Amino acid sequence: MVVCPSNPSEPLKPFEPLKPLEPLITLNNMYRKQTCGELRLANVGQEVTLAGWVQRVRKMGGLTFVDIRDRYGITQLVFDESEADAALCDKATHLGREYVIQVIGIVRERESKNRNIPTGEVEIVAKELNIISSSEVPPFTIEDKTDGGDDLRMQYRYLDLRRPMVRKNLELRHKLAFEVRRYLDAQNFLEVETPMLIKSTPEGARDFVVPSRMNPGQFYALPQSPQQFKQLLMVAGFDRYFQIVKCFRDEDLRADRQPEFTQIDCEMSFVEQDDVIEMFEGMMKHLFKELKGIEFDKFPRMTWEDAMKYYGSDKPDLRFGMKFVELKNMSPLRSYVQGADTSGVGQSVFPEGQFSVFDSVPYVAGINAKGCANYTRKQIDGLTDFVKRSQIGAKGLIWVRKNDDGTVKSSIDKFYAPEVIEAICAKFEAEPGDLMLILCGEMRRTQKQLCALRLEMGQRLGFRNPSVYVPLWVIDFPLFEWDEETQRYYATHHPFTSPNPDDVPLLDTDQGKVRSWAYDCVMNGVELGGGSVRIHDSQLQAKMFELLGFTEEKAMEQFGCLINAFKYGAPPHAGLAFGLDRVVSMFAEIDSIRDTIAFPKNNQGRDVMIDAPCAIDQAQLDELQIALNLKEE
Amino acid sequence: MVVCPSNPSEPLKPFEPLKPLEPLITLNNMYRKQTCGELRLANVGQEVTLAGWVQRVRKMGGLTFVDIRDRYGITQLVFDESEADAALCDKATHLGREYVIQVIGIVRERESKNRNIPTGEVEIVAKELNIISSSEVPPFTIEDKTDGGDDLRMQYRYLDLRRPMVRKNLELRHKLAFEVRRYLDAQNFLEVETPMLIKSTPEGARDFVVPSRMNPGQFYALPQSPQQFKQLLMVAGFDRYFQIVKCFRDEDLRADRQPEFTQIDCEMSFVEQDDVIEMFEGMMKHLFKELKGIEFDKFPRMTWEDAMKYYGSDKPDLRFGMKFVELKNMSPLRSYVQGADTSGVGQSVFPEGQFSVFDSVPYVAGINAKGCANYTRKQIDGLTDFVKRSQIGAKGLIWVRKNDDGTVKSSIDKFYAPEVIEAICAKFEAEPGDLMLILCGEMRRTQKQLCALRLEMGQRLGFRNPSVYVPLWVIDFPLFEWDEETQRYYATHHPFTSPNPDDVPLLDTDQGKVRSWAYDCVMNGVELGGGSVRIHDSQLQAKMFELLGFTEEKAMEQFGCLINAFKYGAPPHAGLAFGLDRVVSMFAEIDSIRDTIAFPKNNQGRDVMIDAPCAIDQAQLDELQIALNLKEE
Repeated sequence: MVVCPSNPSEPLKPFEPLKPLEPLITLNNMYRKQTCGELRLANVGQEVTLAGWVQRVRKMGGLTFVDIRDRYGITQLVFDESEADAALCDKATHLGREYVIQVIGIVRERESKNRNIPTGEVEIVAKELNIISSSEVPPFTIEDKTDGGDDLRMQYRYLDLRRPMVRKNLELRHKLAFEVRRYLDAQNFLEVETPMLIKSTPEGARDFVVPSRMNPGQFYALPQSPQQFKQLLMVAGFDRYFQIVKCFRDEDLRADRQPEFTQIDCEMSFVEQDDVIEMFEGMMKHLFKELKGIEFDKFPRMTWEDAMKYYGSDKPDLRFGMKFVELKNMSPLRSYVQGADTSGVGQSVFPEGQFSVFDSVPYVAGINAKGCANYTRKQIDGLTDFVKRSQIGAKGLIWVRKNDDGTVKSSIDKFYAPEVIEAICAKFEAEPGDLMLILCGEMRRTQKQLCALRLEMGQRLGFRNPSVYVPLWVIDFPLFEWDEETQRYYATHHPFTSPNPDDVPLLDTDQGKVRSWAYDCVMNGVELGGGSVRIHDSQLQAKMFELLGFTEEKAMEQFGCLINAFKYGAPPHAGLAFGLDRVVSMFAEIDSIRDTIAFPKNNQGRDVMIDAPCAIDQAQLDELQIALNLKEE
Repeated sequence: MVVCPSNPSEPLKPFEPLKPLEPLITLNNMYRKQTCGELRLANVGQEVTLAGWVQRVRKMGGLTFVDIRDRYGITQLVFDESEADAALCDKATHLGREYVIQVIGIVRERESKNRNIPTGEVEIVAKELNIISSSEVPPFTIEDKTDGGDDLRMQYRYLDLRRPMVRKNLELRHKLAFEVRRYLDAQNFLEVETPMLIKSTPEGARDFVVPSRMNPGQFYALPQSPQQFKQLLMVAGFDRYFQIVKCFRDEDLRADRQPEFTQIDCEMSFVEQDDVIEMFEGMMKHLFKELKGIEFDKFPRMTWEDAMKYYGSDKPDLRFGMKFVELKNMSPLRSYVQGADTSGVGQSVFPEGQFSVFDSVPYVAGINAKGCANYTRKQIDGLTDFVKRSQIGAKGLIWVRKNDDGTVKSSIDKFYAPEVIEAICAKFEAEPGDLMLILCGEMRRTQKQLCALRLEMGQRLGFRNPSVYVPLWVIDFPLFEWDEETQRYYATHHPFTSPNPDDVPLLDTDQGKVRSWAYDCVMNGVELGGGSVRIHDSQLQAKMFELLGFTEEKAMEQFGCLINAFKYGAPPHAGLAFGLDRVVSMFAEIDSIRDTIAFPKNNQGRDVMIDAPCAIDQAQLDELQIALNLKEE
């Protein structure tokens, strides 16, 4: 496990927590004098006025109990026929779920206390009950464990949001964003709003566009990120910028993508890669300490090549080990970036001519599922089916089992002599009880397949506990990515990412080997954020555009403003962006970002609650001087 | 003057200021070890490393002085030919404006100190000078008093933003937004992000729309405000919501409007009008105390009718008095909202049959420009021209002058007996030296004209000092506004605004008299924000839609989501929104909102720096299944 810091931790000065301020404004209106979350034994005997929603009504003999709920908690009301007015008790028994009521009564100690909630030791003996708003029967129950399906809950999102677990995620989101701002403000960052109506750039993902009525035939685009603006702010001397900002991408939505999403977007001047990493590692530590009470040592760092070599992913989940072991690696050296550990290249534990499958592939590697030697045939078949799924695409799964008695059994026994199988076990440092799972093929593809298998085994073995957090910086990404389809290099991040200066000579000779000064903040196998040092030298930038196949004209058309700005004294600068939705879901220990968003859209980009998007009037189209041009189905 | 609080001030508990946190992360990279704003006499003798922009270079004999600038300040560098390397000094003399440089040197005390800047007592004796980026000669000087025109500055906004006064406005904006969040967080408000891609509603201002590729023929709209969403959050039980949020309006832009603008948007449940006013008065007080060191007593409140009667505006500038004095008011009583002071209606100081102009109008009123009796004929002609400008539209200006010797002179001497002129003076409580300026016509129109004249006189007399702040709540707005053109009533605010319950019976009998529970926060004649108590009763809401001419079908089509939500237990709620751009410009003591925005658009809605909007590719249009449909010129 690569969880321990690689360098000794340099402890930061402790961040002074914001003193909780006393609520200043005590409102004392006709609706309520207390919330449903604040009454305790100390309030017994007081007359109180509460308002909120009816959670449930229970009638037990002459007693009617009503639970009243607001954002702050739940309080039990009691209507006692033997003491109170019959009409009052009758009114209480006829309350429906989700009615908004106001109640005036006296706090008393409960006989049977509910220790699970802070208000569980008291109840309110009601003297007066007013119905503020009635409610139809809601389409699902307003409880954490609801009977409502996903579609129904989204259609009635305003009711879904009443469920405490959904509301708590949004409370967490508020607090997290607030602490981000507090940390960055204390570090001299300025939050600057950049425009939402900007210029469309054909590179990258698809833009949402906005027709301009005042400039007919022309369109704004909604920003995919404020990248150019934040770099312009550095040219403008703002030194440290951040923004929590909505960004937009018109992509076909996968399960957990939203057309609009929120970034914590940051940029700094006169800094190097280490400075940015230190600054934002500090931010993550601050958030974990304030919101979850977790303190971290220095985050480990791993090169992209190591992440691929040992975990088959640029965002390895380090909550568990199960590192890849290479049994054969004949990949060409030119496929590695500069400085990669290529010591295993050219080596193989397998003698040639015995198993044609291994003979024909450049790469064989596996993981050691410790303690899984007792897996049944059926379980191993299940894993084979798993890796052969089209999303993963492996041809098959090889296994080697080291039994508890020390004997070895394998699916390739018939091809190799026992010494070869023993050599495999030795490579894995296998102990009795271990099960080794092996894939083979082209290196990068096989690494990805093995990554999926590793995560699956981690899941099965209970290593992926959402309340355990293991952070990591991945560094030394390749500057360029080769695209087989178009047979050219693309920028791995974006065209402004700086190459590692040591590798600049390679730009002309061996593009694929050039490392970038780019970095990702990864946690539990999830990329929370990433960024890069930017190019601030006009000549180097021009070279990058050339290498990426931009003509000078095309570069000016798309990035002219920034290229021009760099003529007037650009400082060295670097930055990064975190996905706020993703960070919140990590803190909330939920898989989906959807429940970190108050009003999310579905997989078709629709808001089913408000019914958007929708048709607009012809008059609106005419004013914009556009027309529909619908393809026939 | 209505500056004093009408009720005794109830002092709030003082808001505990956020302790300035020590910068946590001390970066110590190759670029700089200090900023250009931090060196003082105490640093004399230290070796320092600074980086920043060349502000200016002066050669005086064998000495070359270079001012180096960053966000934090300016520091003087000195290159002395008698001590230092000739090549170093030569390099310094050849530095151009706005070069980005790094310098290493020793701090020493200056001989001739500059007491105007915090770093003015020291200078850096340079030992090493590195040019990080050179700069072309900028198109205008990077100084507060620049030689660049507005268009040029907007085209090179990234250079304009280097000017300290522009940058300071954005620093103020950051701090103000931060303090808003800090105050509201302490008051249990949750910041909730509402969607940017919503549903178009034909009511109100024009929407910007966004074609949906995944739903061909359908469009999203960008929000004009999150009004429906914040009300849904109240239905969802969020209790206290806020958001600092971008909003959009596709309007023909007046001088000081932007197509995208930022609101501080807020909503609360279980509150009355007074609660909202108290809460947000508290916020404004907090901001003024933290940002400007100004403490306010309780803000005065004024009814809309009084604001119109005495100042001719729903946002009176109370930095000065000069209240309107009515000399004749024959306006029909039905034109006032319920509860208005109509004591002057039906009265006139003018005998009939002597001056046909006054005979023919229902309303004559004026202001007393104290001490202006010495205005020349030319000055008064100038004022007459001012009120006759088409934007104001008065037919003429009547004046009455009470000379220093007590004699009276007037432009209507020939029509009225001296007693009438004396009666006018008495109405104005005129003293020797006063000049009374009088307009006449239809009441509401004349009030607006007189308002313009009052503001002009206030300006001329120096009463409109931008660093004097006089706040006001305007309340009791009419619920409906009559539109002459379409001959129907419209909602003054929006269809969800609650009528004052006392006036509900008037809904059926005299719509125009109904007061709303709406309120505006006004300062120095500027509306900073406004809001209302919302209707939470379905039946009353249905009635409002009916009165506003909505069919049930049309209401459902546009507001169906909210109408449905109200069926499931809506709490009483109320809210308001402040215009952040406007609030910042008020604090920055500048007239325009443009320089509170990092990258504003011009009056044609264009960003001339990035050149947006612009044409997009045919392929993009095809994918969206829309076509241009340009009108011929």
